[in-house]
Amino acid sequence: MGDSFGQLFRIMSFGESHGAGLGVVIEGCPAGVPIAASDIQVELDRRRPGQSKLVTPRKEKDQVEILSGVFEGHTLGTAIGLLIRNADVDSSKYEDFKDKYRPSHADYTYDVKYGRRDWRGGGRASARETAARVAAGAVAKRVLSVRCPDLCVVGWVAQVASVSAAVDPTTVTSDAVDAHPTRCPDAQAAADMEAAIQEARKARDTVGGVVSCVVRGVPAGWGEPVFDKLEADLAKAMLSIPAAKGVEVGSGFAGTLLRGSQHNDPFVMAGGDVRTTSNHSGGIQGGISNGEDIFLRVAFKPVATIFQSQDTVTSDGRATTISPKGRHDPCVLPRAVPIVEAMVSLVLCDHMLRQRARQP
Amino acid sequence: MGDSFGQLFRIMSFGESHGAGLGVVIEGCPAGVPIAASDIQVELDRRRPGQSKLVTPRKEKDQVEILSGVFEGHTLGTAIGLLIRNADVDSSKYEDFKDKYRPSHADYTYDVKYGRRDWRGGGRASARETAARVAAGAVAKRVLSVRCPDLCVVGWVAQVASVSAAVDPTTVTSDAVDAHPTRCPDAQAAADMEAAIQEARKARDTVGGVVSCVVRGVPAGWGEPVFDKLEADLAKAMLSIPAAKGVEVGSGFAGTLLRGSQHNDPFVMAGGDVRTTSNHSGGIQGGISNGEDIFLRVAFKPVATIFQSQDTVTSDGRATTISPKGRHDPCVLPRAVPIVEAMVSLVLCDHMLRQRARQP
Amino acid sequence: MGDSFGQLFRIMSFGESHGAGLGVVIEGCPAGVPIAASDIQVELDRRRPGQSKLVTPRKEKDQVEILSGVFEGHTLGTAIGLLIRNADVDSSKYEDFKDKYRPSHADYTYDVKYGRRDWRGGGRASARETAARVAAGAVAKRVLSVRCPDLCVVGWVAQVASVSAAVDPTTVTSDAVDAHPTRCPDAQAAADMEAAIQEARKARDTVGGVVSCVVRGVPAGWGEPVFDKLEADLAKAMLSIPAAKGVEVGSGFAGTLLRGSQHNDPFVMAGGDVRTTSNHSGGIQGGISNGEDIFLRVAFKPVATIFQSQDTVTSDGRATTISPKGRHDPCVLPRAVPIVEAMVSLVLCDHMLRQRARQP
Amino acid sequence: MGDSFGQLFRIMSFGESHGAGLGVVIEGCPAGVPIAASDIQVELDRRRPGQSKLVTPRKEKDQVEILSGVFEGHTLGTAIGLLIRNADVDSSKYEDFKDKYRPSHADYTYDVKYGRRDWRGGGRASARETAARVAAGAVAKRVLSVRCPDLCVVGWVAQVASVSAAVDPTTVTSDAVDAHPTRCPDAQAAADMEAAIQEARKARDTVGGVVSCVVRGVPAGWGEPVFDKLEADLAKAMLSIPAAKGVEVGSGFAGTLLRGSQHNDPFVMAGGDVRTTSNHSGGIQGGISNGEDIFLRVAFKPVATIFQSQDTVTSDGRATTISPKGRHDPCVLPRAVPIVEAMVSLVLCDHMLRQRARQP
Repeated sequence: MGDSFGQLFRIMSFGESHGAGLGVVIEGCPAGVPIAASDIQVELDRRRPGQSKLVTPRKEKDQVEILSGVFEGHTLGTAIGLLIRNADVDSSKYEDFKDKYRPSHADYTYDVKYGRRDWRGGGRASARETAARVAAGAVAKRVLSVRCPDLCVVGWVAQVASVSAAVDPTTVTSDAVDAHPTRCPDAQAAADMEAAIQEARKARDTVGGVVSCVVRGVPAGWGEPVFDKLEADLAKAMLSIPAAKGVEVGSGFAGTLLRGSQHNDPFVMAGGDVRTTSNHSGGIQGGISNGEDIFLRVAFKPVATIFQSQDTVTSDGRATTISPKGRHDPCVLPRAVPIVEAMVSLVLCDHMLRQRARQP
Repeated sequence: MGDSFGQLFRIMSFGESHGAGLGVVIEGCPAGVPIAASDIQVELDRRRPGQSKLVTPRKEKDQVEILSGVFEGHTLGTAIGLLIRNADVDSSKYEDFKDKYRPSHADYTYDVKYGRRDWRGGGRASARETAARVAAGAVAKRVLSVRCPDLCVVGWVAQVASVSAAVDPTTVTSDAVDAHPTRCPDAQAAADMEAAIQEARKARDTVGGVVSCVVRGVPAGWGEPVFDKLEADLAKAMLSIPAAKGVEVGSGFAGTLLRGSQHNDPFVMAGGDVRTTSNHSGGIQGGISNGEDIFLRVAFKPVATIFQSQDTVTSDGRATTISPKGRHDPCVLPRAVPIVEAMVSLVLCDHMLRQRARQP
Repeated sequence: MGDSFGQLFRIMSFGESHGAGLGVVIEGCPAGVPIAASDIQVELDRRRPGQSKLVTPRKEKDQVEILSGVFEGHTLGTAIGLLIRNADVDSSKYEDFKDKYRPSHADYTYDVKYGRRDWRGGGRASARETAARVAAGAVAKRVLSVRCPDLCVVGWVAQVASVSAAVDPTTVTSDAVDAHPTRCPDAQAAADMEAAIQEARKARDTVGGVVSCVVRGVPAGWGEPVFDKLEADLAKAMLSIPAAKGVEVGSGFAGTLLRGSQHNDPFVMAGGDVRTTSNHSGGIQGGISNGEDIFLRVAFKPVATIFQSQDTVTSDGRATTISPKGRHDPCVLPRAVPIVEAMVSLVLCDHMLRQRARQP
Repeated sequence: MGDSFGQLFRIMSFGESHGAGLGVVIEGCPAGVPIAASDIQVELDRRRPGQSKLVTPRKEKDQVEILSGVFEGHTLGTAIGLLIRNADVDSSKYEDFKDKYRPSHADYTYDVKYGRRDWRGGGRASARETAARVAAGAVAKRVLSVRCPDLCVVGWVAQVASVSAAVDPTTVTSDAVDAHPTRCPDAQAAADMEAAIQEARKARDTVGGVVSCVVRGVPAGWGEPVFDKLEADLAKAMLSIPAAKGVEVGSGFAGTLLRGSQHNDPFVMAGGDVRTTSNHSGGIQGGISNGEDIFLRVAFKPVATIFQSQDTVTSDGRATTISPKGRHDPCVLPRAVPIVEAMVSLVLCDHMLRQRARQP
């Protein structure tokens, strides 16, 4: 319960931050999809620690091994097992506060829920678990690329602290996103974001922000009303990511200020297709994709681990202070981009299969 | 696929707007919970059309019949069937545009997905389906009230168009919310909202807004990482509601502007309990409730049906205009409050059972 | 939990024997399938009480109402709600022993599990719940008939007490089965079975037996190893039927006496297709249909309600005797045939969609 | 789809016979259960090849590694990842017939279903996948042993070819079962079974048989009517095991010959408990455990791999013959015992949690 995601393209993930490793099993993947470990590795490399000076220096190559489900370079249709061993584990930094609840971390809630927890590196609650999401998402991306060659998922950092980027979702590319360590494709904003991150780090503090994501080329017809609407499953996927606190699709919260006459997306015929002349709906109407770009934004809170003394309590109920050590990101946004893309890809691949199932 | 919701407290709903009726079946409801049709009816009455001059005049009593699962005033533990007959059905208003796609409605996407649709009153895509949610949510509320007597779910209208309310989530009550037809417990804001709604109606237009919801009295320990985090399941529940475009938990998008040192919630001991002195986390940490108030906000776009001529296309691909008739709300926010509460209650009841399952 | 069945073609059923009625909701049914209430009624009529002198005289027309999901004679792809009102309810016969546990019924186990039960007519544990299965199964049959016109599901009574029938599964038809009230297409055996049933009834006793079922025309490729093998899901479906105590597929228990060299089904080419020259596998190999006839047998114990005095205990733990009254079948076999067919059809329809999902 | 099993205690397994390895992830395991790799290894050793002269000589130590979910000797409540590397892989024996469909194996059906298959050692369809079941089942056994100390699951070989054993299910122990390589606790029958197996081996042939299993100490109240009845989930579990062709619970097929007056289990009070004086029900009534011993029997067909020339076809549709080589069991029954016990334990652990969920 809670370690699996999806209905037809379904994953179950496992792993603690400082245990033997992380992994994921994928069931329901169609057979015959060409895939290699390198297809997965390229996405993991976008998420892994130590990739730039903006992120945690923990040295993890995050090398993936395909344990099953792939033969002669193609998926078999059987369960795909993926394993990433933990390599650079240093639990000593956590010894000092293994009985202290780190504020706005999951130490306390895991203790209450399970009666025990792996305190080393945050255990299962560490954002390190997202490596398994990215690995599974890479497989989903491959399946989508074979079945829907026009479909592309592009995420980027749209805001860090108070710095916002100006990006055109209809044209932005992953190459442009990955060109800067912030993963912001607006050069000026990227520079300002980097400065904001470095300033926060110097202040032994952290910052939050927003990741935007667009999906172009989704066929009309994906999404399962009334509960498994496409935006509903995307929202769940996004708020399951560590540190995510909000999600909006299409016009989102800003759309609440528009009138219906401004917000409605008029239909027109274009090249024989039904299209809309605006896209406040964000590519989804009535829970089903309408063929326009799907657009969403995800809010990430500032990283909870700050290198300052904070008030807290111990697991046996005494007031104390805590001054975390260890290796941490001052801002998760750059590494959150591949995670957002992975979760979006998992949702889309699942809904592609769900829509396929009912067709003659 | 798509008509069911929840894992252990699981519902399957059905019904078209102008068909025989709507209903829902609930499986997994614990036995021995006292419940009467009137417990469900009181919530349906908060959602039903015609309840005030601010909402659609469609006259539906939305009277619920308990078909099964309740005996001698208590739940049996078996499936609970609930049925609400449609009464005031007038499909004639829809005849004129049954082949025209209403902008920002689900007409086009249903046609693409299913190859056909019930055009009468929006069919399954009508917001009328939410009556089934409210009925099931009322049962969830009863279960929660028996198992967790201190738990209360209170939603309210926090914003309509550009009018925002000032409401203290730690003390707001449902009585205060229901005292005004806008379901805004801030009297001045309520009056301004009412004026904004009436002004939009006169302009044959519609407005959107935000519903806030607080849950007080949730025990620490509910939520199932890493995918079925409490905020993730709440987010899915919220974005499955018709017209919802965004959701935030705790500090949400505003929290992205804070630094970690400002955002972290320090732990303290209070009355023998672990508590936090602020609540930017919105009552959830690492996907698990921490005993503080759960707080969320949901963005609703302006109603798509406006009584103005709009550009659109026909189902056979010709450009045309449409001028909807029928009976519609100029603003869904007042009626959205019981729907939000119902969906929140369903998620919480499900997670209560999920947490119960693993305990000795 | 427990009231739903299937993964993609998924049903949730509800209803107590002497409550308001029984019903079922179907989600995941493909759109565009022509269906009328009469298609469902014809199957319900094969199951309903009072259809012959061999079954219970309870007078239930079991008239089905389609509440949703069907429009202009075709499925919409949305949830299909089906309702059957209870009509001939007489709970007075149960008053006398509402505190006595009927031997080999579910009275005691329901009390232990749920802490209460609807004692009227057996409540949810009554075999009357199978009406909902038959209704849903009729929809599944319609879907199968449209998608796989060559597929046919034929069940029959193969054994009653010690009387066994000789029936050729490769040619038997439903018309031949329904020609005799025993639903045994072997005329001599049918006459002997009828005599055995009447003799048991006179002795105020009951008899059991075996239903066989063949499915011809299943395409190769259905079934989802390693856990959702076709025979595994069929076995679950069969043993979920009241009074079923065993199931075998293909050679079953008798096959355990053969050697591998006798049991193996040699492959040959026939008309361009891969076929087998024998069918000990029962149409399923490695959990996946191989295109041969699927063949299974289901054991039904003798009916638990006998009109004799039996030793039992009361719900407050006192020894007593019980002498049931009411209206009961001396043998469930004839009415079990449409139930077995319905459950088989539900499994096959589900697996058809599951296999469809993964295909390009 | 198809690689996962269970609702609350849920597993997803993976692995091909000659790939990198096999494994399983378990979600929903309660926290705080003491467990070590050796607890799992002891069960794997009962299943592994090479354990006696009666089984395949493939040399696999089947050494399990716990990848996650266990910390300081106790379960964490998080996903438990288990990995078993393949060691003694020799695919050369399969090269010769990689394009020939082995009769009564899954070669043909996998090809039809997936369009490709891993032909080495049977790939995913190899009975080697059951190692993952046994590993997961060992964890389920540990959980059951902590929560229900009186519960014990004992399987044994009840029949091989035409040799049947006389065993008292109310007293049989695992020690007695494991005392003989046939896993038959009736010494005379065990000797006869061994002779039958050796004789078949000499004839380059194989034999089938029956595994019986009893569960003593199950509390009354487990099982979820109407579809997830305890016998239904057990039946699915049993028929998901490779080579299983039938299952019966309690009186099974033999019970069809009894009259109701003979078959009914009278209730009596015994030591303050409600008990029955006979147990034709096999410990389950109305789909719910009644506190008596659960008893079931599983039919296994003779092993499909025989060392004789057989008629078959190639994947491109030509008639041919096949003479398998490789390392194979002449009889799966002795190794099937721990597999049956594992699947039974998984079902029971799942239902224990499901029943727990609804209780106050």
